[in-house]
Amino acid sequence: MDFLDAVRKRRMVRHFTSEAVAPEIIERIVQAAQKAPSAGYTQGQALIVVTRPELKQQIGRLCTEEVYEFPFVSEAAFLVIPCTSEAAYHQRYQEADKIREDGKEIRWPVPYWHMDIGCTVMLLLLAAVNEGLGAGFAGIVSEEDNLKLRELLHIPDEFTAVGVLPFGHPAPHTPSPSLKRGRKAPGDFAHYEQW
Amino acid sequence: MDFLDAVRKRRMVRHFTSEAVAPEIIERIVQAAQKAPSAGYTQGQALIVVTRPELKQQIGRLCTEEVYEFPFVSEAAFLVIPCTSEAAYHQRYQEADKIREDGKEIRWPVPYWHMDIGCTVMLLLLAAVNEGLGAGFAGIVSEEDNLKLRELLHIPDEFTAVGVLPFGHPAPHTPSPSLKRGRKAPGDFAHYEQW
Repeated sequence: MDFLDAVRKRRMVRHFTSEAVAPEIIERIVQAAQKAPSAGYTQGQALIVVTRPELKQQIGRLCTEEVYEFPFVSEAAFLVIPCTSEAAYHQRYQEADKIREDGKEIRWPVPYWHMDIGCTVMLLLLAAVNEGLGAGFAGIVSEEDNLKLRELLHIPDEFTAVGVLPFGHPAPHTPSPSLKRGRKAPGDFAHYEQW
Repeated sequence: MDFLDAVRKRRMVRHFTSEAVAPEIIERIVQAAQKAPSAGYTQGQALIVVTRPELKQQIGRLCTEEVYEFPFVSEAAFLVIPCTSEAAYHQRYQEADKIREDGKEIRWPVPYWHMDIGCTVMLLLLAAVNEGLGAGFAGIVSEEDNLKLRELLHIPDEFTAVGVLPFGHPAPHTPSPSLKRGRKAPGDFAHYEQW
C-alpha cells in the first residue's frame, strides 16, 4: 500500500471480526516494527505477541475492556505488547563511544526510551493498515493490573509494558468519543521559523 | 512509495546536498506528521519548521554539530523541531469524559506525551523517505542549549522540544558508528505468548 494511503487510512479500531490473521502477516508486522530507530541504536524496544485465547481474555480484563462498546482486546486476532527498557539506554550511554569526557553518562533531555517505543508503536499501527488490518490501543492504568500483566507474560524487571495493541480485521464500531474534539488547526500544529 | 519500502529504506542521514526542497513537499511531510495518534486525542504534539539559513546555523551550534563528519543540521534543506506538551495531557484528562470517578486525574502508567511525540517523529522520518528525501536526528543534550533553543524559537513554557530533525537530499556519509553494534536478533525483539 502507498505510504500516504496507509497514514491517511489509519484509525484506532475498537471492534474486530472473528477472522483469523495468518502467522506470516503477524511476522511482517513484527519485522516492520523492528525497523524503528533508537537513540545510540540502543534497541531498547521489545514486543510480546499474544494469540492464545485465554491469554487475550486475561489481558482484556487487565485493560478493563468491559467499559468499551466491544471486548476489542479479547476478541482481537492477536495482541502486541510493546515494552521499553530504560536500563538498556543507561547501559548503552555508559559505553566508551557514548560516555562523556568527565566519565559520566549524558544528561537525558527527554526519556528517549519512551519516544523510541512511540516510533515502534507507530510502525505497528501503520503496518497493520498496510496488511488490510486494523489496530487499536488500550492502556493499563492501574499499577496492580500492570504488575499482573508483568507476571502473566513474564516481562523482565528492566522492561516496561507501555500498553496493549489489539490487531485484527476491523468491524463497525462507534469511533472514540475523543474524536469529537476535532483535529487541531494545522496552524496550531506546525509553526514556521519560530513559534 | 510502498509502505514497506519506505520502512526498509529509512536510514538516519548525516549529510545532505545543497539541493533545496519545495515548500509543497515540506507541507506534505508536515501533514503526514499531524496524523500521529495521541492519548485521549490530546494532540499535545506540535512542530517548528525552520528553513532560514541563519536559524539553521544557530540551531546547528546548539546541536554541537561540529563533532560530526558534516554540519548536517545547518546544511539541511529544512529542520523540524518536534515539541510535546505534558500539560496538555493533564488538562485533557481532567475533562469530564476522562476524569476518574473520585474526581482525580488518572495515574499515568507511562508518559504518553513522550510516546506520542515518538509516533510523530516516526511519521516525519518515513514521510521524508516517501518524498525521496532523507532525515536525521540530533539531540540537544545541554540544559543551557535547550534554553537557548527555546528562546530562539519562542517555544512556549508548556512545550518541550525533543530534538532536531534535519531534512534534505541525502549525500554520502559514514553511517553512525552505533550501527556497528548490529541489529538485535529477531528472537530478542519479539517474544511469542510470553517473554
